[in-house]
Amino acid sequence: MKTICFGEIMCRLSPEGRRRFVQADRFEICYGGSESNVAVSLANFGTDAAFVSRLPKHSLSDAALRSLREHGVDVSHVKRTDEGRLGLYFLEKGASQRPSKVIYDRAGSSFSLSRPGEFDWSQILDGTDYFHFSGITPALSDGCAALCLEACRVAKAAGVKISCDINYRSNLWSPERAGAVMNSLLPYVDLAIINDEHAKLLFGIRSTSAADTWARQTDEVYTDVASMTSEKFGIPAVALTIRGSISAEVNDWSAMLYINNTSYFSKQYRINLVDRIGGGDAFSAGLVYALGSGYGAQDAVDFAAAAAVLAQTTEFDAAESSTDEIIALVRGASDGRVQR
Amino acid sequence: MKTICFGEIMCRLSPEGRRRFVQADRFEICYGGSESNVAVSLANFGTDAAFVSRLPKHSLSDAALRSLREHGVDVSHVKRTDEGRLGLYFLEKGASQRPSKVIYDRAGSSFSLSRPGEFDWSQILDGTDYFHFSGITPALSDGCAALCLEACRVAKAAGVKISCDINYRSNLWSPERAGAVMNSLLPYVDLAIINDEHAKLLFGIRSTSAADTWARQTDEVYTDVASMTSEKFGIPAVALTIRGSISAEVNDWSAMLYINNTSYFSKQYRINLVDRIGGGDAFSAGLVYALGSGYGAQDAVDFAAAAAVLAQTTEFDAAESSTDEIIALVRGASDGRVQR
Amino acid sequence: MKTICFGEIMCRLSPEGRRRFVQADRFEICYGGSESNVAVSLANFGTDAAFVSRLPKHSLSDAALRSLREHGVDVSHVKRTDEGRLGLYFLEKGASQRPSKVIYDRAGSSFSLSRPGEFDWSQILDGTDYFHFSGITPALSDGCAALCLEACRVAKAAGVKISCDINYRSNLWSPERAGAVMNSLLPYVDLAIINDEHAKLLFGIRSTSAADTWARQTDEVYTDVASMTSEKFGIPAVALTIRGSISAEVNDWSAMLYINNTSYFSKQYRINLVDRIGGGDAFSAGLVYALGSGYGAQDAVDFAAAAAVLAQTTEFDAAESSTDEIIALVRGASDGRVQR
Amino acid sequence: MKTICFGEIMCRLSPEGRRRFVQADRFEICYGGSESNVAVSLANFGTDAAFVSRLPKHSLSDAALRSLREHGVDVSHVKRTDEGRLGLYFLEKGASQRPSKVIYDRAGSSFSLSRPGEFDWSQILDGTDYFHFSGITPALSDGCAALCLEACRVAKAAGVKISCDINYRSNLWSPERAGAVMNSLLPYVDLAIINDEHAKLLFGIRSTSAADTWARQTDEVYTDVASMTSEKFGIPAVALTIRGSISAEVNDWSAMLYINNTSYFSKQYRINLVDRIGGGDAFSAGLVYALGSGYGAQDAVDFAAAAAVLAQTTEFDAAESSTDEIIALVRGASDGRVQR
Amino acid sequence: MKTICFGEIMCRLSPEGRRRFVQADRFEICYGGSESNVAVSLANFGTDAAFVSRLPKHSLSDAALRSLREHGVDVSHVKRTDEGRLGLYFLEKGASQRPSKVIYDRAGSSFSLSRPGEFDWSQILDGTDYFHFSGITPALSDGCAALCLEACRVAKAAGVKISCDINYRSNLWSPERAGAVMNSLLPYVDLAIINDEHAKLLFGIRSTSAADTWARQTDEVYTDVASMTSEKFGIPAVALTIRGSISAEVNDWSAMLYINNTSYFSKQYRINLVDRIGGGDAFSAGLVYALGSGYGAQDAVDFAAAAAVLAQTTEFDAAESSTDEIIALVRGASDGRVQR
Amino acid sequence: MKTICFGEIMCRLSPEGRRRFVQADRFEICYGGSESNVAVSLANFGTDAAFVSRLPKHSLSDAALRSLREHGVDVSHVKRTDEGRLGLYFLEKGASQRPSKVIYDRAGSSFSLSRPGEFDWSQILDGTDYFHFSGITPALSDGCAALCLEACRVAKAAGVKISCDINYRSNLWSPERAGAVMNSLLPYVDLAIINDEHAKLLFGIRSTSAADTWARQTDEVYTDVASMTSEKFGIPAVALTIRGSISAEVNDWSAMLYINNTSYFSKQYRINLVDRIGGGDAFSAGLVYALGSGYGAQDAVDFAAAAAVLAQTTEFDAAESSTDEIIALVRGASDGRVQR
Repeated sequence: MKTICFGEIMCRLSPEGRRRFVQADRFEICYGGSESNVAVSLANFGTDAAFVSRLPKHSLSDAALRSLREHGVDVSHVKRTDEGRLGLYFLEKGASQRPSKVIYDRAGSSFSLSRPGEFDWSQILDGTDYFHFSGITPALSDGCAALCLEACRVAKAAGVKISCDINYRSNLWSPERAGAVMNSLLPYVDLAIINDEHAKLLFGIRSTSAADTWARQTDEVYTDVASMTSEKFGIPAVALTIRGSISAEVNDWSAMLYINNTSYFSKQYRINLVDRIGGGDAFSAGLVYALGSGYGAQDAVDFAAAAAVLAQTTEFDAAESSTDEIIALVRGASDGRVQR
Repeated sequence: MKTICFGEIMCRLSPEGRRRFVQADRFEICYGGSESNVAVSLANFGTDAAFVSRLPKHSLSDAALRSLREHGVDVSHVKRTDEGRLGLYFLEKGASQRPSKVIYDRAGSSFSLSRPGEFDWSQILDGTDYFHFSGITPALSDGCAALCLEACRVAKAAGVKISCDINYRSNLWSPERAGAVMNSLLPYVDLAIINDEHAKLLFGIRSTSAADTWARQTDEVYTDVASMTSEKFGIPAVALTIRGSISAEVNDWSAMLYINNTSYFSKQYRINLVDRIGGGDAFSAGLVYALGSGYGAQDAVDFAAAAAVLAQTTEFDAAESSTDEIIALVRGASDGRVQR
Repeated sequence: MKTICFGEIMCRLSPEGRRRFVQADRFEICYGGSESNVAVSLANFGTDAAFVSRLPKHSLSDAALRSLREHGVDVSHVKRTDEGRLGLYFLEKGASQRPSKVIYDRAGSSFSLSRPGEFDWSQILDGTDYFHFSGITPALSDGCAALCLEACRVAKAAGVKISCDINYRSNLWSPERAGAVMNSLLPYVDLAIINDEHAKLLFGIRSTSAADTWARQTDEVYTDVASMTSEKFGIPAVALTIRGSISAEVNDWSAMLYINNTSYFSKQYRINLVDRIGGGDAFSAGLVYALGSGYGAQDAVDFAAAAAVLAQTTEFDAAESSTDEIIALVRGASDGRVQR
Repeated sequence: MKTICFGEIMCRLSPEGRRRFVQADRFEICYGGSESNVAVSLANFGTDAAFVSRLPKHSLSDAALRSLREHGVDVSHVKRTDEGRLGLYFLEKGASQRPSKVIYDRAGSSFSLSRPGEFDWSQILDGTDYFHFSGITPALSDGCAALCLEACRVAKAAGVKISCDINYRSNLWSPERAGAVMNSLLPYVDLAIINDEHAKLLFGIRSTSAADTWARQTDEVYTDVASMTSEKFGIPAVALTIRGSISAEVNDWSAMLYINNTSYFSKQYRINLVDRIGGGDAFSAGLVYALGSGYGAQDAVDFAAAAAVLAQTTEFDAAESSTDEIIALVRGASDGRVQR
Repeated sequence: MKTICFGEIMCRLSPEGRRRFVQADRFEICYGGSESNVAVSLANFGTDAAFVSRLPKHSLSDAALRSLREHGVDVSHVKRTDEGRLGLYFLEKGASQRPSKVIYDRAGSSFSLSRPGEFDWSQILDGTDYFHFSGITPALSDGCAALCLEACRVAKAAGVKISCDINYRSNLWSPERAGAVMNSLLPYVDLAIINDEHAKLLFGIRSTSAADTWARQTDEVYTDVASMTSEKFGIPAVALTIRGSISAEVNDWSAMLYINNTSYFSKQYRINLVDRIGGGDAFSAGLVYALGSGYGAQDAVDFAAAAAVLAQTTEFDAAESSTDEIIALVRGASDGRVQR
Repeated sequence: MKTICFGEIMCRLSPEGRRRFVQADRFEICYGGSESNVAVSLANFGTDAAFVSRLPKHSLSDAALRSLREHGVDVSHVKRTDEGRLGLYFLEKGASQRPSKVIYDRAGSSFSLSRPGEFDWSQILDGTDYFHFSGITPALSDGCAALCLEACRVAKAAGVKISCDINYRSNLWSPERAGAVMNSLLPYVDLAIINDEHAKLLFGIRSTSAADTWARQTDEVYTDVASMTSEKFGIPAVALTIRGSISAEVNDWSAMLYINNTSYFSKQYRINLVDRIGGGDAFSAGLVYALGSGYGAQDAVDFAAAAAVLAQTTEFDAAESSTDEIIALVRGASDGRVQR
């Protein structure tokens, strides 16, 4: 199974432990981004994963690529350029009632300056099973949006399946602009991941069976949202991720996969968060892996949800779990007994 | 709004993470004290806060002053002297059933050697809205107690409001001595912060409506304690802080403000503690700020309680929260969702 | 009270914080092993504790011995040799649903190469009250098993009491081999510590009163297991430890002591784990100390359980609690209030 | 004595110890920039120093301002804006034959987007003795260059002395552009700091008495360069800094001040570098302080050179030396004997 | 250019900074070994480098492979096995007159248990330009020695050039055994790296032109040793590395390449050591790269020596220098001026 | 060989790396004092060393005792008291021209409050070969001075040899007071360690053969100072330590032992300092050990000087060198070659 992930990789900088930004005299660093995180998970699962991006020619970008290469991700399609900078983001981890904070500093990145025609999609996608991108990539610039469309067309023509985590970020674009661009991309998509809030915000999709709340909705509502999304864009498989924030340190997490007019729900996990960044990406990777490997719908959503849970019990953006570890959790080993 | 806080600032030394003292080969350090913590919060809230103290002439005291100056606290009234030392305290953070431990090493500090007449209170308090001190200051020495009285008299004469966090510390003085000294100071006070345990211990104040327990009392009991304290000393506003220790890592926290014969209770928070030192100081600062800014009683206690909660989710003695962050928590944003 | 503990001490290496092995660029180290942990606790309790072992002649073994000597453990009976290596183990701490992992690297250790006759048990055990070993020691090699038997015989002859924590480790030997060897050793034992799972696996001991589950059994089941173990080997006192894993970070913990046909249960603690390694060893030490100091059965199991709880709220293998701290917890001080 | 420094403050990020960028998993951070470093030194010297700049409204900029405020620098003239980003730079410290490396990431900073008219120079410079900027400020953008000119005109009119460290950076602008802009600014300047290499590159100034080398020139050459610079722009005082790089860890450092047709040379120091960033800034600050305090020319260059040396024996951009420490070094205390 | 390196990769553990083993409570870790270090350098130089080895199936071995993969080394030929352990070594860095110390703990490693026939050399060496191993590999076990011979035969037959760093380690085998085994391997070798001390010890090769000293010999002596080695085994190119230890922190380093009856000496560098482990490996890699890329003999030894110098100014076993950085040093940029 | 060392042990706190006090947010800690450092070295040398002192009853004092116990120092004579505090000192390590700084915070320590009669010297000194103290002990208080005299009298009567490192500290007492007290103690002393500067300052001893300088004196001057000291107090053996400060990081170090009218000089070492604290203490310990073990005068001073050198290449107050390591340095192994 071979996958191409297309997006930006950034350097993430976080104060040590639970320090706030103004208290930091050191930042722990890692490299990640929504699509590179998916690529890392797919490589961890033993598949052939490649990451396509564009980075400046300096040592920090070298370090970003190393972080992918060490996981076994193929980075040979990453362009190095003199133009633009390495995207950064700063993360302050919250605690208890104090929320986590993110400061993005990604404007003007080399990737966001990418132009249509820059990547030879036919060659890149040759022999690929899945092409994956998130809604962050088209949000970065018109060039990036155009490149997504280019890639989707080539993929579709070549019989490559397309997965997309809609992942709306309000600090990158407006709901209107996001809705318009995603409208043009989603018809190509075979597997979409979304949540109920974004479905409503971008596409006006809302269940008629329930009042509009921020809290955990009923299963019926989730099914409505998925089926309406599926129908609107003709997407065969639509997954929803369902996060309940208890505090900055404790979250409930579950997911649902809607396929062939049926909803399959994972079990709900209460997670004592180590690092919640990258949970959704691990879910996407888990779903692509499971569906691409022929798992049934229930097994697929179970696998992907467990992958997402383990990712959130692990430091840094990239997940580090193997299929064995994920399957053990699916099978119920959630009591944390020491493995000797 | 301008505030003067009078007290001692110490160097705090703590083993890293959850290590015990005997396991430490490094101490994390910060600088703090009850009144300097109040000054820092008040500066964080955007007000004009000054700290009055007395410190030896060496680099560690320079560092203590820097830690105030970086928050914007005016330290121009701090005296530097050749006499005495910098107060220290060592903190071992507990975990689960294991309690935190504090070793004080503050005897003989330059501040405790302060003598009446050393500070020109008329000049210092000129134009000030609030003069704040805690019960720790008069506990340190007769000189410090006399200075508190001096300051209270000048403040009262100048129309400066006085706030006092009674903050009884049994390792500094006996209940009898504390009761006697506080008896002479509290009549000057406009806003007192106390808890039910200390009210009983120092002043024999106890509710007739309830048995004597260490557990959370009824609201009625708290109201009794506050009203009796208010009446005994003629203090217009009396606040109670209500801490329930679940474990070394989890505490319940709420507060009450009694004013004009009415009790206003904050909501109760269950805090996953990052650093519980300084929670009460953030509460004092919050109350001074809120009352000084014209908040109503309920809004004031809500603001102050949320300030105290956030302070306990933040490393080190000094709080780092802005009014915006506190108000967001008051308004219900306690689920810790990432702020991007 | 004088105790001899016989076993291996290893260097433990763990990634910092919650990092996984593949994410580590630093290991925190400590030195420990089941019996050396017992010796450290016994020394912490103010008793005369000695550790008997065999170590290579290099600086890392020096460091291991220092870690015992600093607690006041007598290491004068430890042999230094040119043969074999220092045992190691690597610990990855889990989080939430992610289990902790241990990689052992102890094969070929100097201790495992010990040969019968190497230790002068008569001289070593002279004046000793208790001889302690765990089931790990005989599991390491035939030589180590023979040495246990040697020591038990000498101890028995000299009137030294023998305590043994059965502590079965499936990665060291099979249940059959363990059952056979322990069969030959347990008849010498005065105090055995075991859990229900190992009793069944090694000796086929199982209660008739209950179905076979991994969950917390009824008190009746524990009593059955203890009484059957006591009867089978003629062991006067048999203790059971009862761990319930909620997650990698939260465990329930309690214990039972069966003596004179009666079961004494400790209270059950819910522990927010700091480091669960060494909890059972602290329990063994607590029991040896309490019984050796003339505590009654209920007091003994209460003391030992509280010692085990505090050990798990403390970093590293070795416990660091004094009898005062343990007794405070027994008496109910579990709310973690700061001790100033 | 009151000084205004105008420029950019950045966040600096460096791998720990001697690690290379690709080896880093943590960055040590500090905040600095040529002019803010000067302001910090001037505040350390006990003078009234203010920093004028423009920063985005987020916590990292708050941290940058704290780092100034803790030294006592007045930051009330710093504008906070929604436009642009915080400038960053990454520093990899070299070792032996391996050079240090800097990656700048300052394009698009809030400061570089400053526009003429944004600062009320009359008000800012009121009562000021010295206005200081470096050649980096006008290099950042046309707006910044225009602001320098604005400030120089107002300063000159108000009788405020102007100091400028020419500090040419080839990665910011070409020698031609730098020469042109500096040509328009230097006629306002009362004290210029330059080195022989930049004098030649920007202004074609070169001594006729010596061949053109990169090595340490003769004193005659330095005098020629200074006198020609002084004459060309009508600058009363011109200082040269003279660095000899032995390796990434050892540098020779000395300086010369040309004033009233006479050259005054400091002694030459061989420095075992702790952090060479900020050495020149400490020199500028030392010179401004010394000349502004009425030191004679020889004393001034001696003081400034010693300040520069101590700055390079101290971690991070900002110097931390007091006038007492600098004067002790001037007087010969360079043997590093412990001060108890 | 494609290279195969055959050997063991170990986990290295070092106390932080200059701490001694007995003072360590943390170890910094990296993964390295003579041949894997060569592979990393060759990958850094942009060539196609693969590493052949045998490792146990656990996460620490995964981490070892990651450290190679992140540099771009192909690890697809590394066998994973249930047999044996991961080799370790502990490094205590010296200072001034205090020597560095190494404790090896590599006995019983999975690699040392390798058996002849286990690697399909024909397939592995297909299309390869250079096969590289050091004298450490055959020293580890008879199996490893036999595998070296196997590989040499296949390589020779396939026209693959063979390079060997003789790298005698007295703690692994005796000079006699080493001499005998190397005698059987060296006749296959095209490029040998040795030093004068080992030439004498293993092969009795000593110059007649000089007394036997440990100090730097004359160039004549080095030429004699190289020519005699070349002649004895029929090796076309023989290189000598020449280290002069001034202290634990300062070393002189140079090298010589003897080829076609001529000696080419590099310049001598005085290195302020950051980490001297891996210097010789970087030299081997530099030589293989340079000769394989068609450099002339003088250029080759200059490149390789500069590579070795930079490796010793960089933390950890693996070198991190690019060809550009090495060539800059060859061209004289040794003054460590900051590169902006 | 058995030794008793009498003095104070303190907690030392130092900023990490080369940070200055005002830059520290963490302190590295160790425990040491002149006499405890001597005891540690003597224990490292394999002798029976005990430390006599007085400490408060809290965990930090426990940690201080652990640091001695881990080296094998007998601490059974240390008194624990409720009176006074643990002495502290803060160390800022210098660099290049920037001197190290020490802030003492030892006033009011439990040890300084010791009273005559508190220690049962007859019992403590029973069977002892050497009683050691430094001039710091009597400087701390009249009680401590009286205790020194007490101990000297008992020791002399019991035939215990007495060694004293005069170690004058101007921040503890005046030269006059020090001279007077040492005058009463030195007549008991068998081995005194002093430097030329203190001999002059305290006792007016100065060579007639040379001008009074701070630089390295001639051997003649050192001999004069030693012989005059020996004669004045009737001390059989007088040693001088000779430090030449090149910079905060580089010192020259040598020593001389005057015995039987003859001067024996060690070789002079140029040390790249890791931690200069404790160098003199290692020298004292080396001399006591060597003379007590029957070394000749030249061997003794060589051993002691090498011990002092290695102590200064090792972090923290306490030396960590074995006799083997010291003898290797005496024999010339100063080139720091890696020991594998």
